[in-house]
Amino acid sequence: MSATHKLRSLAWKTPSKASAPIDAFVRGHLEMLDQTLLPTELRRIDCRTIESVWEGIKMLRVRGAPAIGIAAAYGTCVGLQTVFYDVDGTRRIPTEDEFFARLSETTAYLATSRPTAVNLFWALDRMKAKGESLRGAKSVEEIALDLLAEADAIREEDVELCRRMGRYGAALVKDGGAYLTHCNAGGLATAEYGTALAVFYWATEEDGKKIRVYSDETRPLLQGSRLTAWELRENGVDVTVIGDSMAAVVMRQGKIDGVFVGADRIARNGDTANKIGTYMVALCAKAHNVPFYVVAPRSTFDLTLETGAGIPIEERDPNELRFFQGRQSAPEGVDVYNPAFDVTPAELIAGIVTENGVISPVVPELIDEVVGKNRTVEDVLKERANREV
Amino acid sequence: MSATHKLRSLAWKTPSKASAPIDAFVRGHLEMLDQTLLPTELRRIDCRTIESVWEGIKMLRVRGAPAIGIAAAYGTCVGLQTVFYDVDGTRRIPTEDEFFARLSETTAYLATSRPTAVNLFWALDRMKAKGESLRGAKSVEEIALDLLAEADAIREEDVELCRRMGRYGAALVKDGGAYLTHCNAGGLATAEYGTALAVFYWATEEDGKKIRVYSDETRPLLQGSRLTAWELRENGVDVTVIGDSMAAVVMRQGKIDGVFVGADRIARNGDTANKIGTYMVALCAKAHNVPFYVVAPRSTFDLTLETGAGIPIEERDPNELRFFQGRQSAPEGVDVYNPAFDVTPAELIAGIVTENGVISPVVPELIDEVVGKNRTVEDVLKERANREV
Repeated sequence: MSATHKLRSLAWKTPSKASAPIDAFVRGHLEMLDQTLLPTELRRIDCRTIESVWEGIKMLRVRGAPAIGIAAAYGTCVGLQTVFYDVDGTRRIPTEDEFFARLSETTAYLATSRPTAVNLFWALDRMKAKGESLRGAKSVEEIALDLLAEADAIREEDVELCRRMGRYGAALVKDGGAYLTHCNAGGLATAEYGTALAVFYWATEEDGKKIRVYSDETRPLLQGSRLTAWELRENGVDVTVIGDSMAAVVMRQGKIDGVFVGADRIARNGDTANKIGTYMVALCAKAHNVPFYVVAPRSTFDLTLETGAGIPIEERDPNELRFFQGRQSAPEGVDVYNPAFDVTPAELIAGIVTENGVISPVVPELIDEVVGKNRTVEDVLKERANREV
Repeated sequence: MSATHKLRSLAWKTPSKASAPIDAFVRGHLEMLDQTLLPTELRRIDCRTIESVWEGIKMLRVRGAPAIGIAAAYGTCVGLQTVFYDVDGTRRIPTEDEFFARLSETTAYLATSRPTAVNLFWALDRMKAKGESLRGAKSVEEIALDLLAEADAIREEDVELCRRMGRYGAALVKDGGAYLTHCNAGGLATAEYGTALAVFYWATEEDGKKIRVYSDETRPLLQGSRLTAWELRENGVDVTVIGDSMAAVVMRQGKIDGVFVGADRIARNGDTANKIGTYMVALCAKAHNVPFYVVAPRSTFDLTLETGAGIPIEERDPNELRFFQGRQSAPEGVDVYNPAFDVTPAELIAGIVTENGVISPVVPELIDEVVGKNRTVEDVLKERANREV
């Protein structure tokens, strides 16, 4: 994707003058964009202690499954830095035991920051396994640098996944078109480009298409107006904020050429759990013959679930709907139903954009090949065509 | 409706000890519930000057077409009180010319409070016409009392209309059922019972049915969570607040037995303009086979409009979606589309509950008879049945 893409929510910063390669590890830090302050304030936090990384994840300064995983990976490096210093601040080389004891402590501590985030554990396990795999074979300094490289790899792999989804999805976007999205499946939730929003970035930055994006406000936490509208504008994509209840009207007015949303979890039949309100948008899209696309990497699929019926609907704090931006907006203690997400049935989904191509039609047979066997959609369809000949 | 119904947003208060009948007029005042403070504060304003009535309408302390009309009618009485006093506060009897000059000034002044509210002009014209019709035939004191009686009549007629709609609508409500509503079509918007909410009040208070009402929050101004949830709870109806984007999910979960909403304007074919988001709810209701009802008096119909296509979509201040109660929730100056209402096509509406019965199916032929010719649905259907025999 082009250099004009400015948004990077997480980055490892190294000192400009380093006396030894290890300095990139020992003297670096994690820079984290504080998403809780958006859109009114753009502030990046320098996380130089493991406590600050933990707090950033805990307080949702960083959010979105891939972004949390990346923060945890770099956070592991931050946590390991302390064993390279004496209590008086003098640099030292730790013993292997000291190093691996600290690696265990660090990953165990970070795992407590947000116990429901699957990507958090995945990233911490990967960092720990990487370190352990090198134990005895390399010096602790070499292992430390390899761990930093592993965190970079986790980040870069996510960037690459997002780029691939963006490229596949952008082919579904037409010059001059207008598209609706819900919540924030953007660069803020990933390493850089996002899932659903990567489609818009690729369409504009790489393909040079002129588009407009309608962003649902997305109650209760307003990720659409606070985050999506902000990052699209920062990256030069025209955006219009609408209330969640307005999606049907803009479709009826013929303003919307397609819908692109992210996903939290996708069942084997294509049923997709995503932020609350997604299902309502999908129903309206169907009623207006507007194609509805989900954008998600293969890792979002849970092939052990036959259908979306197996996905539990988590309920969140009722005060999210009794208050609006900290101000009371409903009677005190009034009953509230506040599901965090909903399930959109596969039959409402025109296609699922993955890093292996666009799964369309959304049926288990194609999902099994593309997600389960990690094949590209193109290859699967080619093979089928050959078989039919 | 039963005496347990506590909510009265507007009332004329008279002094307990009056030395003469005219005191009810000259020493009375309009008591107005300040809806802008709900749901956190329940404050009634004593409007003893015409300026305070004007300000109350202007600042939306009173809102809803019928309620604005009633406030304007009583406000006319408040404005007329001054001609019964000398500048030093001594009571006096004005000349007929003084009285009618003041009547003209008062109605002209109140008409500037909210220039788009049709009921405002309707009520002011009715008060003025009533006064003029008595000129020369009665004393100014008698005319004043008749004007107060006219304001009472406007109020009582609205109460009666709402009761009738409530009774007809309640027949569509089942014991143990759950119903969804959007925005506030309640007692706060009318003299007492409301339109859509009158259905729930009648079902519970008169029919003794146990029901639960799901109230859409209704962005941008949150009338659903601020007002509907408050007044339903005040009147003992179980209510659950949901976000606007959650209506589809609760329907899919089988929680909703029907939808009842109010209306701003209804075309001859039944197409209904109402608060933004109503159309989206109607679409979702259709998709889940949930009956969708509109509740509105005959006066809401505009039979000069063949279809809803003739109803212009008014756009409101974009800052309603960039802010809430002073707190920024979207990037500064970001593009916003903020239509105030939408049009639900007649084919999505199972029935329109009027004071003359439930118009169902929603077709021009039945609307012409019931609305245009002011006949009850029952009479029209009876006549048709007879013709077919």
